[in-house]
Amino acid sequence: MKNTEQLQEIINREIGNIAVNERPEELYEPIRYILSGGGKRLRPLLLLSACQLFNDPIDDAIKPAIGIEVFHNFTLVHDDIMDHADMRRSRPTVHAKWDINRAILSGDAMQLLAYECFFGLKPDMLAKVLPVFTKTAIEVCEGQQYDMNFETHFNVSITEYMQMIRLKTAVLIAGALKIGAILGHASEADSNNLYDIGISMGLGFQLMDDYLDVYGDPEIFGKNIGGDIVSNKKTFLLIEALHRAGTSDHNQLMQLLTDRYIEPAVKIEKVVALYDKLGIKDLCLKKIADYHNDAVNQLAEINVPGDRKKILLNLLEKLSVRTN
Amino acid sequence: MKNTEQLQEIINREIGNIAVNERPEELYEPIRYILSGGGKRLRPLLLLSACQLFNDPIDDAIKPAIGIEVFHNFTLVHDDIMDHADMRRSRPTVHAKWDINRAILSGDAMQLLAYECFFGLKPDMLAKVLPVFTKTAIEVCEGQQYDMNFETHFNVSITEYMQMIRLKTAVLIAGALKIGAILGHASEADSNNLYDIGISMGLGFQLMDDYLDVYGDPEIFGKNIGGDIVSNKKTFLLIEALHRAGTSDHNQLMQLLTDRYIEPAVKIEKVVALYDKLGIKDLCLKKIADYHNDAVNQLAEINVPGDRKKILLNLLEKLSVRTN
Repeated sequence: MKNTEQLQEIINREIGNIAVNERPEELYEPIRYILSGGGKRLRPLLLLSACQLFNDPIDDAIKPAIGIEVFHNFTLVHDDIMDHADMRRSRPTVHAKWDINRAILSGDAMQLLAYECFFGLKPDMLAKVLPVFTKTAIEVCEGQQYDMNFETHFNVSITEYMQMIRLKTAVLIAGALKIGAILGHASEADSNNLYDIGISMGLGFQLMDDYLDVYGDPEIFGKNIGGDIVSNKKTFLLIEALHRAGTSDHNQLMQLLTDRYIEPAVKIEKVVALYDKLGIKDLCLKKIADYHNDAVNQLAEINVPGDRKKILLNLLEKLSVRTN
Repeated sequence: MKNTEQLQEIINREIGNIAVNERPEELYEPIRYILSGGGKRLRPLLLLSACQLFNDPIDDAIKPAIGIEVFHNFTLVHDDIMDHADMRRSRPTVHAKWDINRAILSGDAMQLLAYECFFGLKPDMLAKVLPVFTKTAIEVCEGQQYDMNFETHFNVSITEYMQMIRLKTAVLIAGALKIGAILGHASEADSNNLYDIGISMGLGFQLMDDYLDVYGDPEIFGKNIGGDIVSNKKTFLLIEALHRAGTSDHNQLMQLLTDRYIEPAVKIEKVVALYDKLGIKDLCLKKIADYHNDAVNQLAEINVPGDRKKILLNLLEKLSVRTN
């Protein structure tokens, strides 16, 4: 059995082998750039950990794990165009460093390279995991569309919001775990349980992102604090604040959101003051803890030796207290 | 055995079933729009015809044929963004009708929907055709990148140009034929021969596109004549003209290409006059005929009963004299 560090080493080595020596350089350079930008490598780590829950060795799962990471990075390249985001992981985004056309086309190629990572599998395994991957990937697109839809209206319900982040964030984490389980020859029931664990993890993960945008340490978080507030992004915090506010606070919040001339720093300060007044910080932390506990409990019910669960449990623990 | 009209009917019916009833509407509406825009349905027709060369019935090949058409239409959606093209098939392009974000995201989803079309295949077949599809699709992206690279330089050689259109246009036609052959249980040799036929067809097809942009009937062609000339697109005609021109004609051509203030109609008239003087029209028609003959001869060597080849032969014939 491999430990977390060993898995991470494998992932980083294999990521470095993607799109090397391919031509034209103009297409593949942005791909190598985004893939070399670091990030948590969470999804491939989850896929390999899930595989290892059920089976040693994990060799067959390595390339598919990389495929999931390539797909995830493709979504970042295209999302950054759509969100007009110029920085990611403290570096210029692909379209900012080159141009929108290069970002569109290299992203398109990344989707295909992600599929290529699966073609070393035996046919029966390929036929099992590719539909899971593809359904997940389509749902990620649907989630991104809902997220964009939400930009233009203020009456998003918390149910709609949770459905959106389930699609945009949670299903890929869930899909990574399920594909890992399938590749580890888990039963169908266990594979589905791993998927459910991933949904809990993914929802908690996205709420933590929302939380850190407001309450994170900018030095550690790697982005400016309050970006979601400035752009009126419909986050768990904003939706709950709008929902919980009495008439006067609601009016004040709406005024802050619709004031086009307000200084960003002032807007952030005043919105956060309202969040604090309405107890949104604790509400969010409570919800994150709930999803964390759900995932831990779901993992406890998987019938494999306890020592096999350590890597996933550690990962869950780390995510629940992450600061970046 | 089905005839051309029956195959076309099947294709149009199945295309109409893609992305019906899916949500969110904002994501799937552009997909249905581009798929309903008509077009020649050449690639699915080729896939089914190739399958039928070797095998009856063709049921297993229908969905994959649709997948190829969905992928082809995805490339149109994204290429139109990159080329700033506002019209296609006499209708607004997706990004012109909605916006760039919708066009990016619905295109992304179409790539995935294309893969979904293959998942009804038995595992062994899936494992044979998906790598062919994926390699082809990656090459299409590479071709598009070369095409964009050529926009900014004037010293593109005819070899570089033919390599670009091989990737951008020919390999998908070749891939469609090869996948059809594989699904028809053709031998590996025959499948590869079908691929080679597709390369000849595809190169001729693209040269005909270049030709029709200059010498087509605007009423029938469906686009304005001379668009490639106005935008300095590196076509077979322009590259050959630059190559064949003596010093004086070359200077005049370069002056026309670099004159930013010239009236489009004047530019078209003068460039076409140079093409005519240099014999480019006949050169292009000759090259198209050569590729057509190559394809016909390659098809003649495939060892199946002659009546099975009729649909493909008719299609080749129609493409070689097409006017739109």
